[in-house]
Amino acid sequence: MCQPVRVSDTSSSTPVCVLGLGLIGGSLLRAATAAGRSTWGYNRSNASVEAARADGFEADTDLVATAKRAADENALIVIAVPVPAVDTILGAIAEHAPDCPITDVVSVKAEIAAAVGRHGLAKRYVGGHPMAGTSESGWAAGDENLFRGAVWVVATDEGADAAVWTEVARLALDCGAEVVPADSKEHDRAAARISHLPHILAETLAITGDAGGPLALGLAAGSFRDGTRVAGSAPRLVRAMCEGNQEALLTALDEALELLTKARTELADRSSTEDLVDSGHAARLRYEQRDDWEISGIAPGDDGWVMAMREAGRRGGRLRSL
Amino acid sequence: MCQPVRVSDTSSSTPVCVLGLGLIGGSLLRAATAAGRSTWGYNRSNASVEAARADGFEADTDLVATAKRAADENALIVIAVPVPAVDTILGAIAEHAPDCPITDVVSVKAEIAAAVGRHGLAKRYVGGHPMAGTSESGWAAGDENLFRGAVWVVATDEGADAAVWTEVARLALDCGAEVVPADSKEHDRAAARISHLPHILAETLAITGDAGGPLALGLAAGSFRDGTRVAGSAPRLVRAMCEGNQEALLTALDEALELLTKARTELADRSSTEDLVDSGHAARLRYEQRDDWEISGIAPGDDGWVMAMREAGRRGGRLRSL
Repeated sequence: MCQPVRVSDTSSSTPVCVLGLGLIGGSLLRAATAAGRSTWGYNRSNASVEAARADGFEADTDLVATAKRAADENALIVIAVPVPAVDTILGAIAEHAPDCPITDVVSVKAEIAAAVGRHGLAKRYVGGHPMAGTSESGWAAGDENLFRGAVWVVATDEGADAAVWTEVARLALDCGAEVVPADSKEHDRAAARISHLPHILAETLAITGDAGGPLALGLAAGSFRDGTRVAGSAPRLVRAMCEGNQEALLTALDEALELLTKARTELADRSSTEDLVDSGHAARLRYEQRDDWEISGIAPGDDGWVMAMREAGRRGGRLRSL
Repeated sequence: MCQPVRVSDTSSSTPVCVLGLGLIGGSLLRAATAAGRSTWGYNRSNASVEAARADGFEADTDLVATAKRAADENALIVIAVPVPAVDTILGAIAEHAPDCPITDVVSVKAEIAAAVGRHGLAKRYVGGHPMAGTSESGWAAGDENLFRGAVWVVATDEGADAAVWTEVARLALDCGAEVVPADSKEHDRAAARISHLPHILAETLAITGDAGGPLALGLAAGSFRDGTRVAGSAPRLVRAMCEGNQEALLTALDEALELLTKARTELADRSSTEDLVDSGHAARLRYEQRDDWEISGIAPGDDGWVMAMREAGRRGGRLRSL
């Protein structure tokens, strides 16, 4: 583990096998193809596979054949199915392509890493999470530019294989994203705050607004429209994301409940919203003014690279090349 | 009150005097001018008045002179100052232009109506609230098209003067908006749900995300950006809006707290977010698919027009012409 991996500035030529062709998997298949990679994909649904083929991509409903091809061509396998389907996919990989490097683009990292471990695939796995999406889903919603300029978390856990890590990071860079290295659990805690809690609050706002009937919905302008946008996402995807990150989401939700309860008391007792509004405004400004600096000088495989990468990610750093 | 007002399809030629030249007042001055009205404005700040003049508009820092001109030309006076300044403005109107028709564009209606009453101006007042805005403020942020296609609530309270009501509705239509007739208190309850609660939740989300440090803020994508957008609004404007609608906001906030507390329990006890997510998604769909139908056949001044207009607004109707 102490030998630095040979890293060049050229992008990888490793083939990419995408399992799951929804919004994220379908966008990834397109983006990797556009980056010049040899690619093919699998989807359970015949309709999605036919749509992908009609768009000129290689796709199949045969999971076993798809995994065997990955083994034959030593492809990087990308798991891009919803959480409930991950176990079936891992079973097929363990049986037919156990030596391939594996990553995933599922939103919760610790849960997937644990499932990978149960299938004995931990050594060849480095998780990933592109922070991109729309409220739409399915192959047709995909876009080869979905990841351009987006952030892509590459799991940087103790014992990560430097070569696999590099392959995953290069795939993200090839898709036009910037890489944020993060420990899986830290990623999940951060995602709860900035991705899962926003969904919970959007659902809550949608219900409370709707309870005001047609007058309220008819008066709704930008603040309600933007604040409820992600409540338009498919419920099964929102649930999979939120329920897959239960512990971290409960922590974030408890913090939000405490803030709201205090604000309620302040408004009722002192007719004021000062504390909440001033703190919220300052927080939003920090978000708007955040500094996305470039990580450099850390090579995967160097002594202490995992800790160094992780610490850089924690401070807001991003890899823009490898 | 039972004689119908003579209503024609031509827009009004009544001059418009705008008191307060911030985002809303400044946009209104521009829009009314573009609609062919004679207009002039007042602002306390010399810088705003100079900026408005530099853009070719008539503006002054002299409140008394501005109000006297409104009396001389029998203008429709529009109060467009923040809530804390409303009392001073009403004092000047009561002294120098007590017979002018008066409206306002402040977000909370019942509180302003009460202040108008205390100054003995209730008979000539019909409140208004254009549901438009951005997170910016000040004269420079104004836009003559800000109200185009937006909804503009015209207060439709018991005893409203049909002629003043018609003037206010015509100003809204002239600015390109659609008129929603609503009782002041019903407006305030609806606004709490779709405008003030969204601000409270946005502030809460901004704080909870920011507590995750640079890693969390760096991973934030669309759901966090949109969910916190209005936390970027000036705190004093958010506070004035929320605190001015205390009672209705507490009701909406309590409903949100109850939903979130139930969701917290469901997630902790059953690892599920089903109830909240399914209901939130259904509510968002109702919002997306709401029917904005056109009100017709009710003339201000007709027997029972106030109740008929109000009932139409409650069911989602909008006036597109008068």
